Amino acid sequence: MGTLTNKKALIIGAGAIGSFYGALLHKVGWQVSVVARSDASLVAEQGYQFESPLGDISWRPHKVYSNENNNEKFDYVVLCTKVLPSLDRAALLKPWVSDNTTIVLIQNGIEIEAPVLEAFPNNPLLSCLAFIAVTRVAPGKIVHKAFGRLKIGGYPHGNREVAQPFADALSAAGVAADVSEDIVYERWLKCVWNTPFNPASILANGADTMQMLEAPGGEAFIKTLMAEVVRVAAAAGYDLPADVVEANIAGTRAMPAYRNSMAIDYLHQRDTETEAILGNVVAVAKKHGVSVPHLETMWALIQIRNEPPRVSD
Amino acid sequence: MGTLTNKKALIIGAGAIGSFYGALLHKVGWQVSVVARSDASLVAEQGYQFESPLGDISWRPHKVYSNENNNEKFDYVVLCTKVLPSLDRAALLKPWVSDNTTIVLIQNGIEIEAPVLEAFPNNPLLSCLAFIAVTRVAPGKIVHKAFGRLKIGGYPHGNREVAQPFADALSAAGVAADVSEDIVYERWLKCVWNTPFNPASILANGADTMQMLEAPGGEAFIKTLMAEVVRVAAAAGYDLPADVVEANIAGTRAMPAYRNSMAIDYLHQRDTETEAILGNVVAVAKKHGVSVPHLETMWALIQIRNEPPRVSD
Repeated sequence: MGTLTNKKALIIGAGAIGSFYGALLHKVGWQVSVVARSDASLVAEQGYQFESPLGDISWRPHKVYSNENNNEKFDYVVLCTKVLPSLDRAALLKPWVSDNTTIVLIQNGIEIEAPVLEAFPNNPLLSCLAFIAVTRVAPGKIVHKAFGRLKIGGYPHGNREVAQPFADALSAAGVAADVSEDIVYERWLKCVWNTPFNPASILANGADTMQMLEAPGGEAFIKTLMAEVVRVAAAAGYDLPADVVEANIAGTRAMPAYRNSMAIDYLHQRDTETEAILGNVVAVAKKHGVSVPHLETMWALIQIRNEPPRVSD
Repeated sequence: MGTLTNKKALIIGAGAIGSFYGALLHKVGWQVSVVARSDASLVAEQGYQFESPLGDISWRPHKVYSNENNNEKFDYVVLCTKVLPSLDRAALLKPWVSDNTTIVLIQNGIEIEAPVLEAFPNNPLLSCLAFIAVTRVAPGKIVHKAFGRLKIGGYPHGNREVAQPFADALSAAGVAADVSEDIVYERWLKCVWNTPFNPASILANGADTMQMLEAPGGEAFIKTLMAEVVRVAAAAGYDLPADVVEANIAGTRAMPAYRNSMAIDYLHQRDTETEAILGNVVAVAKKHGVSVPHLETMWALIQIRNEPPRVSD
């Protein structure tokens, strides 16, 4: 099938990840605009400068919007913000979405699609997971270190006729973009890693992967957390591979020690996606009566962190 | 019975708590010396200056030792250091203890007496819990805010004939000093509060009591942790009162919000007694096959915190 060309796309939340996938769509001839927050004027003037193993993928958006006032609609609206309770994603999407717009989420977490589906029940909805190491190092300046693979699926499942052309456009730009018939399964699979490692890293003040695995009892603890995620997934109807815990540990040990993106957000005092990655898993566990005491403890500790102090010094 | 007088006592670890109980023994006529670390020369010159609701209990030690080289022995050696895996308490005691010395521990935690008993199997051993709000605000300067009650017992139990005269000496100085026939029971009782609140406060970056109780799910979480401590105590042979969890919550709510001493140690980057207060409880649970997943999670997270990072930035 031919690659889609000349589509109009809008990237909302054009940080490192958003500007990266925007670059790819731009590369295959799409007219790509962005909603940018802090870097808006600089990006409008100079565009995004990239360092990337894919070569020079620097690009300038067709338009840079810094607020919601517009009458422009798009074929694709790609939402790349963090998923935060304080961020009304439906409201972010609303000004740009027509009856014909395909909504694309490139976001982390579990059970994150429902609020968007509810707000736009008649629009095609693609849910995507990005496997990528990309960092915004300065305004408008992004370093793409490695990877870039995207897992794309219609939500809640199927809808390959919408997912495939979007995947093909990205594939044509040079990254692996695989269509999944069951993206929720893929999200649970990714949670097996993220749900334990990300919040544990925050609670241990930014611990890296090997610090977590090598602490006394650390690996056993991470495996216990992973096993809880697997049980919740199973209760929700998603049977993950029998060796998924071992495979995740082996995979982590095979890589150099590193701090995950949530740990880095935490260390830079930025908002973290704990709700989407841990809170929602604990909520699904509760709904299905699955006991997750270890995940629950991490969640409770994060809730206490988020609570304002009553004493000051 | 008559109060003991003219006894020779040595306080090891004469920080806020040690210098406070030293002041009381001095007040009733004992000859009290101290082993002081950082404040040694200042304390030798000026003694300890107190603000206290008990009146002026400022005092100057008979001698101030700053190291172990001596031939002096004492009737009572009172150990008031923190209980840390890095601190060999038997080695701290050794230079000052004769066959006739009564060893007194005024220290936190559970199962903290065994290493001392093992090193000095023939000396009377008193184990004490201090209920006190006292702070060292400057070298040699201590503010005693409130309380001071001491629970004193022979270890592992009984030995009232040794405990009572020591308690009477302190009582004569103006604090409640109660002898317990079963000090280990009293330690478990105190752990019902300390084992949940202290480490949770660290993991939540210094959270105060009301912050912990008022966070979403916070009170239920603290109660779950308390219930785990109660089950471990029961498995170890100590049946705590049926209402102990409710009573601890009510007692905490009845007081103004405050940061516990472990939280304050943590915020000042000083060593914390997590091993004595949490690690030992988890170890006893394991020994008796009691499931404590919530305590276990806190312990694992603290182990990860203590592990050095593998990446640097």
